[in-house]
Amino acid sequence: MEELARSAKASSRILAGLSTADKNACLLAMATALESATAEIVEANAADMKTGAAMGLSSAMLDRLRLDAKRVAGMARGLREVAALPDPVGRVLDERVRPNGLKLRKISTPIGVVVIIYESRPNVTADAASLCFKSGNATILRGGKEALNSNLKIASTMIAAARKALPGFPEHAIQVVPVPDRDAIPELLSLTAYVDLCMPRGGEGLIRAVAECSKVPVIKHYKGVCHVYVDAAADPAMATSIVLNAKIQRPGVCNAMETLLIDRKIAPKFLPGIAQQLAAKNVEIRADKDGLELLGGAEALPKLKAATEDDFYREYNDYIMNLKVVDGVQEAVRHINKYGSAHSDSIVTGSEPVAQAFLSGVDSAAVYWNASTRFTDGGEFGMGAEIGISTDKIGARGPMGLEELTSYKWIGIGSGQVRT
Amino acid sequence: MEELARSAKASSRILAGLSTADKNACLLAMATALESATAEIVEANAADMKTGAAMGLSSAMLDRLRLDAKRVAGMARGLREVAALPDPVGRVLDERVRPNGLKLRKISTPIGVVVIIYESRPNVTADAASLCFKSGNATILRGGKEALNSNLKIASTMIAAARKALPGFPEHAIQVVPVPDRDAIPELLSLTAYVDLCMPRGGEGLIRAVAECSKVPVIKHYKGVCHVYVDAAADPAMATSIVLNAKIQRPGVCNAMETLLIDRKIAPKFLPGIAQQLAAKNVEIRADKDGLELLGGAEALPKLKAATEDDFYREYNDYIMNLKVVDGVQEAVRHINKYGSAHSDSIVTGSEPVAQAFLSGVDSAAVYWNASTRFTDGGEFGMGAEIGISTDKIGARGPMGLEELTSYKWIGIGSGQVRT
Repeated sequence: MEELARSAKASSRILAGLSTADKNACLLAMATALESATAEIVEANAADMKTGAAMGLSSAMLDRLRLDAKRVAGMARGLREVAALPDPVGRVLDERVRPNGLKLRKISTPIGVVVIIYESRPNVTADAASLCFKSGNATILRGGKEALNSNLKIASTMIAAARKALPGFPEHAIQVVPVPDRDAIPELLSLTAYVDLCMPRGGEGLIRAVAECSKVPVIKHYKGVCHVYVDAAADPAMATSIVLNAKIQRPGVCNAMETLLIDRKIAPKFLPGIAQQLAAKNVEIRADKDGLELLGGAEALPKLKAATEDDFYREYNDYIMNLKVVDGVQEAVRHINKYGSAHSDSIVTGSEPVAQAFLSGVDSAAVYWNASTRFTDGGEFGMGAEIGISTDKIGARGPMGLEELTSYKWIGIGSGQVRT
Repeated sequence: MEELARSAKASSRILAGLSTADKNACLLAMATALESATAEIVEANAADMKTGAAMGLSSAMLDRLRLDAKRVAGMARGLREVAALPDPVGRVLDERVRPNGLKLRKISTPIGVVVIIYESRPNVTADAASLCFKSGNATILRGGKEALNSNLKIASTMIAAARKALPGFPEHAIQVVPVPDRDAIPELLSLTAYVDLCMPRGGEGLIRAVAECSKVPVIKHYKGVCHVYVDAAADPAMATSIVLNAKIQRPGVCNAMETLLIDRKIAPKFLPGIAQQLAAKNVEIRADKDGLELLGGAEALPKLKAATEDDFYREYNDYIMNLKVVDGVQEAVRHINKYGSAHSDSIVTGSEPVAQAFLSGVDSAAVYWNASTRFTDGGEFGMGAEIGISTDKIGARGPMGLEELTSYKWIGIGSGQVRT
C-alpha cells in the first residue's frame, strides 16, 4: 500500500507540470479507448456481476454495478466533457504588491494525491479519475470489491491510452487498489506523507468508517437532511411548487427535502392543501403534534402519522417526509441547525428581512431563498461536472467541481528583497 | 469537555450574526480592560512563574511565560489592531446567474468553533481569541498547564469587558480549557459535532501528537525546513544578500533558511565567498561531499563539517545550516520536495524559464524568486495579523490571517425556480 501511495505522489509531481493541451489530449484518447474497449469492459463487468449475485446483492445494487455499451459510452462522454472544461490549475486567486516591491500571487495548484473510496458503481472510476487528472492530481481509487474487475479494466484502459497519447504520462497517475480486503483502507489513509485528501462517496456508514480511521483530511457529506421552510409571507403557489419539487422530483438523492417546516401563521391556510397534494403523490407524512392537529388527526390522510424526534434527523431518500409547525424564522433556523445535515435548506417568503435572517442564520453549505433545494449540484451550479458534495467547513463546501479539487500556493517575485 | 464544546457551538451561532461595529466595539473594550487589569494579570502570571520554576522550565521557557506591563500593553495593542482590520465575514467570493435566473453567491462565513492548542506564551490567548472573534468564530484555548492562571485571567478579563460593551455577547465565545491534564485534548478533538477546526502551535512533537489523535480537521505546519537555491544565472551579490538574510536575520523562526543549494556551475565561484561570510557570522556549515571538497575540506573553516543524510531533514532554528551542490534547477526541486517541509523556498536566478521551473515545481506553501524566505509571514503578506502558518493542502496554506479563518456558503436567490 505504501509503494502504491509513494508512486502516486511521484506521479503527482509530473501531473502538476502538464500543460492543459497535454491533459486534454490524454482525456480525449482515454474516451476513445474506453469506447473501443467496450466489449472487454462489459466482459470484465460480467465476472463482477456473477460475484455480486453470489454475494447476494440486491437487484438495485446489481443494477448499479452493471455496465453495458450505453454506460460505457456515458463514461466516454463524461471524459470528453471534462476535457472541454477550463483548466482549474494556475488561476490567479489574489495578487498584491508589497511596499518593498515584492509581488505576491496566490495561484491555484493541484492538491496532490487524492483517494476516492466508493461503492458499487464502476463508472465512478472513470468520472473521478478524469476530474482528478484534469486538476493535476494523482488518484487512488478504492471501489467496492464486487466491482474490482470492472474498475481495474477501466483504469488500465485509460492509462494505456494516455501513455500512447503522451509518452511522458506518469503511469501511476491513476491507480485502483488491487486488493479487496477492508484493512487496505486504514493503511492507505494513514500515509500522510503521500496522501493529501480522501473523498469517500456512498452511504453514511461507509463515510463514517472512513472519517473515523483516516489520518489524512477527508471531505465528505454524511447525508442530506434538507429542509424547506414556508414563511408566513410566502406566496402559496410558489411554496407549493417548491415543496413538491424538493420532495418528489427525485426523492432518492441527497438534496431532496426530508422535512417541511411551516410558519404557524400560515399553517392553517397552507397545510391542508399541500398535504393533500403530497398525499396524492403517495408521500407519507410524519407530522409533529401541531401539524397533525391542523390536518385533523392521523386518519385524515391515508399515509399520515406522528413523527418521533428521531425522525427529524433522518434522511429517508424515499416518498416519506417530516412536517413541523414552527413559530417563525428563528425557530426554523434553530431546528435546521440542530436536526439538519448542513447540506441544503430553503426558505419561501416574500419578505427580504426574514429571508436574510434565514440565509445568514442557517449554517449549511447551500441556502436558498424562493428556490428548490434540488439545485445543489455541480451541473446546476455551472461547474460542468461534480466529484461530490461537501458539508464540511475546511476546504471545499457545497458542490465540488474542478476548482474544488485544487489547493494554492503563494508565489513571491522580487528583485533581491530581504527582510529588515 | 462536551459541555464546553457544545456551549462554544451555541455561542458561535450568535457570533456569526454580530455586526462588524459590534465586534469592533467588543475588541476595543477588551483592549482597555486588559490594560486596566494589568496588575491582576501580572499577579496571576506570578503564580504561573512560580509553578514553572518548580517544574524546572528552562530560562528561555520562563521568559516566554513571563507577563509584565509591557507585554500586557502589547496584547492590548494587538486587539486594537485586529479591530482596525476589515471584517473577513460576508465577502462575496463568487457570483453567478444561472440560465434559469437563479442568482448564486459564494459568501465567506465563520468556520464555527476553533480549538487553539499552544505552549508557554500566554499572550497567544489574547491574540488567537481576538482573531477568531473578529472572524466570527468561537474559540477554545488550550495553553500549557504552566500558563493556566495567566490564560484564565486574560480570557475572563476579555469576556467581562465584551459583555459590558455588548449585552448580547455570548459568554462562551472565548473559553480556556480549565483542566491541565493531557487527556482533555483527545477528548476535545473527538467532538466532531461541535468542533470545526484545531490549530496547534508549538514544537513538532506537540503538533504531531495533536494531528495523530484529532478527529476534527487540523491546520498546521510541523516545521520549517526552508531552502535557498542559488542558480548558475544568479547575480552573486543578490544571492549573497538573500542567503545571509534567510539564514541569520533571525535563525530561530520557521521561515529561516536551513539548507543552501548551489548549482554546480556557479559553485566554484560563489561557494568560497558565501561560506566565509557565513563563518564570519558564526554559522556552522554541514556540507555534502562536493561542497566540502570545493571548500577545501573540513579544516578550511572553523565550523565546517560533513552533513549526514538526516541533517537535510532537520530544522535547526539556530546558527547551523546544510549546504549541497546540485546539478541545476531540477535537482534542486527534487531535493526540496523530498527533504523540505513545504514551507518556504527561494530561487536566486536571472533566468525566467529557470525561475518558472522552480516556482511551479517546488510544492511548498510559499515559493520565491529573488527574495528571502523570511517574507512568509502574515504581516509581510499584508494580512495585518497572523494566527499561524499552514503547510497543508486542504483549507488555508501559507500565512493565515483573518480571511484564512473563514469558510464559505453558497446562497441561491430565486423567484420560485424548481428543478426540471
